Order: sequence, then structure tokens, then C-alpha cells
Amino acid sequence: MSPFNNNSGTDIRRIGEFGLIELIKKRILSKDKRVLVNIGDDAAVIKSSSDKLLIFTTDTMVEKVHFDLTYCTFEEIGWKAMTANLSDVAAMGGLPTWALMTVGLPQSMQAQSVLSIYKGASAIARKHGCRIIGGDTTLVPKNLFISIALLGEVERKALVTRGGAGKDDLVCVTGQLGEALAGYRHLSKYGRKKLSLVRKHLKPVPRINQARELVRKLRVNSMIDISDGLSSELFHLAEESGLGVLISERDVPVSPKCTRLASLLGANPLNWALSSGEEYELLFTVDRKDKGKLDRIKSNLGVSVIGRMVDQKQGLKIVRESGAVLPLKKSGFVHF
Amino acid sequence: MSPFNNNSGTDIRRIGEFGLIELIKKRILSKDKRVLVNIGDDAAVIKSSSDKLLIFTTDTMVEKVHFDLTYCTFEEIGWKAMTANLSDVAAMGGLPTWALMTVGLPQSMQAQSVLSIYKGASAIARKHGCRIIGGDTTLVPKNLFISIALLGEVERKALVTRGGAGKDDLVCVTGQLGEALAGYRHLSKYGRKKLSLVRKHLKPVPRINQARELVRKLRVNSMIDISDGLSSELFHLAEESGLGVLISERDVPVSPKCTRLASLLGANPLNWALSSGEEYELLFTVDRKDKGKLDRIKSNLGVSVIGRMVDQKQGLKIVRESGAVLPLKKSGFVHF
Repeated sequence: MSPFNNNSGTDIRRIGEFGLIELIKKRILSKDKRVLVNIGDDAAVIKSSSDKLLIFTTDTMVEKVHFDLTYCTFEEIGWKAMTANLSDVAAMGGLPTWALMTVGLPQSMQAQSVLSIYKGASAIARKHGCRIIGGDTTLVPKNLFISIALLGEVERKALVTRGGAGKDDLVCVTGQLGEALAGYRHLSKYGRKKLSLVRKHLKPVPRINQARELVRKLRVNSMIDISDGLSSELFHLAEESGLGVLISERDVPVSPKCTRLASLLGANPLNWALSSGEEYELLFTVDRKDKGKLDRIKSNLGVSVIGRMVDQKQGLKIVRESGAVLPLKKSGFVHF
Repeated sequence: MSPFNNNSGTDIRRIGEFGLIELIKKRILSKDKRVLVNIGDDAAVIKSSSDKLLIFTTDTMVEKVHFDLTYCTFEEIGWKAMTANLSDVAAMGGLPTWALMTVGLPQSMQAQSVLSIYKGASAIARKHGCRIIGGDTTLVPKNLFISIALLGEVERKALVTRGGAGKDDLVCVTGQLGEALAGYRHLSKYGRKKLSLVRKHLKPVPRINQARELVRKLRVNSMIDISDGLSSELFHLAEESGLGVLISERDVPVSPKCTRLASLLGANPLNWALSSGEEYELLFTVDRKDKGKLDRIKSNLGVSVIGRMVDQKQGLKIVRESGAVLPLKKSGFVHF
């Protein structure tokens, strides 16, 4: 990197890039005894656990593609970019540990705004035991971007991939779905009024604690986080596991906020719940033998069983409330 | 991530983003038995060495800030972005192992161009035992960017930071300096004619092998890579070590190509050598007790001794050929 190196010749107005880096160092970075070299050298140096596997992931958000500064604060953008990464670690069954955070900054950015991005990212990272230990700052001609690289750790027996689902596994999701998309539609139409309705869109939370509980207590055979929408992720999971999926409309946990906003805007809440991206909820499958255990803990963890894994040749289907069985679409939209 | 996840709704023209990801998977990624989960899941999973420290770094290059597509091929951009990261690992005394590579792509990009970026990055990474194991692709409204996160490993006794220089240490550099800046000036003025003159600007090489030789054979007390120019890095090294530096004009290895281009353009070659960024050569200090050993291996490794570390109160100075002692400027430019 050099962690927060000065990557270009031009200064951010007001305090300059070196001033900015000093600010970030002071306000955001903190010591961690497993981090031997922190910000201020060519790279960070870490003592990793010898008995754990390393999780390595990255996720980037770009202004006008993933977020719009008309609706979002800088803190929220940092928070969300970090959540996207933390959520990937959750989906592997692991715990996040260290992050490098890169920001591409238009010349007109205020130092305070940059600090707010780091503050938002650091806040949600720290809640889950993860620290920002470096990164890179660079100028960009136009659109702001945030790119985070994250490390995490996972015990070999806790590791869960997308491809391990077995036939008859119970298909489950955490949380309630549809709020992220509903929030986005609400913001586009009404702005930041009634913020509580759109909180999940602005400050989604990664399901790290739930994932850890689940992999400790159950045979979780496959897991993926919902960043592209439930339907789309069901397709990924089924494909990677070489199986089909049968889910039941009645059991899909559509968020009441999603239902409320959808009816306000004349949309179908189920479709929103199936296609809402950036939910950062977990979609996973549990070995049928663990049904009893799952039943005992699911309400505490906010988990819903929405269906089961079936033969690949049965494809991906949804049982409507009416009893009709319809093919599921990747985009999430079912025809009525 | 999901390694190479489809991070946005719009497609790259021609083959679409998923098609692009498939292409990258097929053409660029390769198996590594220490990588348990590769592209195609939420994150990569790695078995790291229990007896080594982990190096974690990131570096980003943005169109119109760090490169200009008028002068550079896509392959060269990928190569250079990877070299910047590999060089950071070299500067810590380590070996690079795995990379995640993120590309921000304008909608008009050709799939083939994206593949060329990956190809260039992968070529220089593989030469040094490092593999691309995932990343992220996203659309950007305008300027192309490449952001790489890199992991490496280093034995605790081989680790070198910027801050370990001792008084009387010999100050050394690898290679010959000034070509990167000279190449840039040449390209701006004459384009890609006489490519051999500008190769170092377009396809710089990280000094990983030299760094490993050095840390194995000598007491290397501090090290930094020259990404911002020799003078600027001397200031970093001196500051982090709480010392001053005295270098000798006569011993600064100015590249003959730099000298040739500078005289062609009426510039001063020494100033170019002092201020040329993106050299990716190593600046390091060796314990005076190892002078004999250093003398025996330096020509084989292309190393020059350019001065020594002195008391902080002496500051940073350069002894001109004339014998005059002048203060060194951070920008690299000395006054005549």
C-alpha cells in the first residue's frame, strides 16, 4: 500500500492528503496486539492463527452505481461498504479480523466527509471484532468509490461454502426480507423522511453472530449471503450444490415494512422480498437430521425455514399460497 | 466479495458481466493447493503458514490519475498495478502469495480489454509465486480503476520495516534510477516510439528476489520501496528511524536511459533520479558491520551504496560532485 500512502500528486483541498492520512490515523486506527506493523509502512504485518483458515474477500462500492449521495450520508456509505465485506465472511462461517480500506476521492471532497466514511466503516467493523489497519487514498477525476479488502478467520470444521447442500436439506434465511429494496424505492421517491422505514437500506447489519451460532450448533451444509436477492442466491446455491429448490410463499419472511411500502407504491411485496439485493441476510441449508435442533433455536436467531433442497431435475419452484407450483425466476419476479 | 461477484445491474456490452467473470475464471485463475475456496463463493479461503507472519497490502490505480490509456496498453496497466503491490511485499522482506483484483469498468469496455488487464497482472504475479484468486468487478460511470489487495508471508526474522535504520548504516538502493520519470516524459512527448527506452515506466519489475537475498544474507535494518521518488522515501526512512541521511551525488545510480532522455529534453538527470516515482526499486540500510558482505554481493544484486545514516540533527543532505554539501529536498529537486 503503504497503508494510506499518498498515491497522487494533487491534494484534497483544505488539509491536503497527508493531513487527511494523519487525521485517519488519529481518529480511526487502533492498536491490536496481533498487528505487528500498522499504518505508516509499506504494508501491514499480522500474526495469523496457526489453527485457523484465513478468509480473504473484497467488495467495492461506486457512487452513482451502488449509492447516491442525494440519499446517503458519508457515514452510511462507509458502513454499508464494510457490511458487504463483513457479510461475506459471515457467509463462510467465519469471524472478520482486519480490513484495508481504500477510498477514491474527487478533488472537491472535504476531509471531514472522508473521515465520516471511515467512521461509518469502522463502527460496524468494530462491533464485530474487526479493525481497519490500513488502506490507500487516491484522487479520482469524478465518482467517489470505496474498496475494502477484508481478512477473517474460520476453524476448518466451521467453514461453510455455497456448494455443500444435500438433498432434503432445510432451506433457511435469517431476518425479514424486502426492506433493502423497499427502502431504496422509498428514498428515491420521498427522500430521507421516515428514516426508520429505510434504515436497513442505509445501515444494513451483517449476520456474523447468527452465522457463528448456526455453524456451532447445527450441520449447516451450505451458506451464501443475500447480496443479489433471495431468488438469485437460491439459483447460485442450487447450482453450486447440483440440486433443485422448492420454497413456499407462505414461509418467505416478508418484512412488514416492505409490505407497507410496497402497498403504498402499488408493488407486490413478495416480489420485492424475492428480488431485494443488499439484504445481507444469510441463506443457508441445514441437514434434515438437525430439524429438531433447528426448531429449538430458530426463533431466537430470527431464522425462517422457507423450503427444502430437491433433485436437480425438479428445478427451482415456489409453492404459492393458492397451492399452485410455479417456476422461480432468477430475477425474483414470479408471474401472477 | 463473492470473488468476481456481479456487483451491479448493468452489463458490460458484448458478453455481459457474468460472461466476463467466466472468461476470467477460465483464462486467469489457477489452482493452488493452499487455496481451499477460490472464485465462485462469498470469499476465498486459504491455509496460511503457521510459522510465518502475514503481510497485507493494497494499492489502487485510477485512469487519468495514475495512467493514461493514450500511452499504455491494458496489459501494462494490470502489470503495473500488480507490481505496485508486489513491491510493497518486497519492501517488508516477504514473498507475495495471493491477490484479489478489483476492476472498475466503464460500460464501453471490451471484455478482451478487461482480460488483458488481468493477464498483465497475472503474468508479473506468477513470476513471483503469487496468484490471483478472486476479486470484484463493478461498473463505473467514467474512469477505469484497478484496486488490488495482496497477501504475502514473511519469517519473523526476515521482516524489515521503515523504522529500523541505525546510525552509520549504509544507505543502499537497487537498480538504476530515473527511468520511470524519464519514460513518462518521453511517452507524453513522443508516444510509444522507441519502446525500449520507456519499458521501466510501462512494465516495472518488483525487487522481490533481491529483497529476499538481501534479508537472508545481510543485517538489513530498514527498507522501503521507491514509489514516490528516492528523495521522498529517504525522508520517510529517516523520519521513521529518527535519524538523518547523508548521500553522495557521485554514488546515486542514475540510469543511462534517464541521462539520455533528460539531455534530449534539456532536463537534469540527477533531479529526475531523485524525484522519479513508481521506480519500485528498494531503498534500504545495512548495518555497518556487514559492509564486507555487502561489498561481495552488491554488484550481483545490482545494489549501490549511496550514503549513510547520520544524526537526526544533521538532517538530510547531498554531497555534490563539487564537494558542496546541500540540503536534500523532499521533492527531490536540488538547487544549483
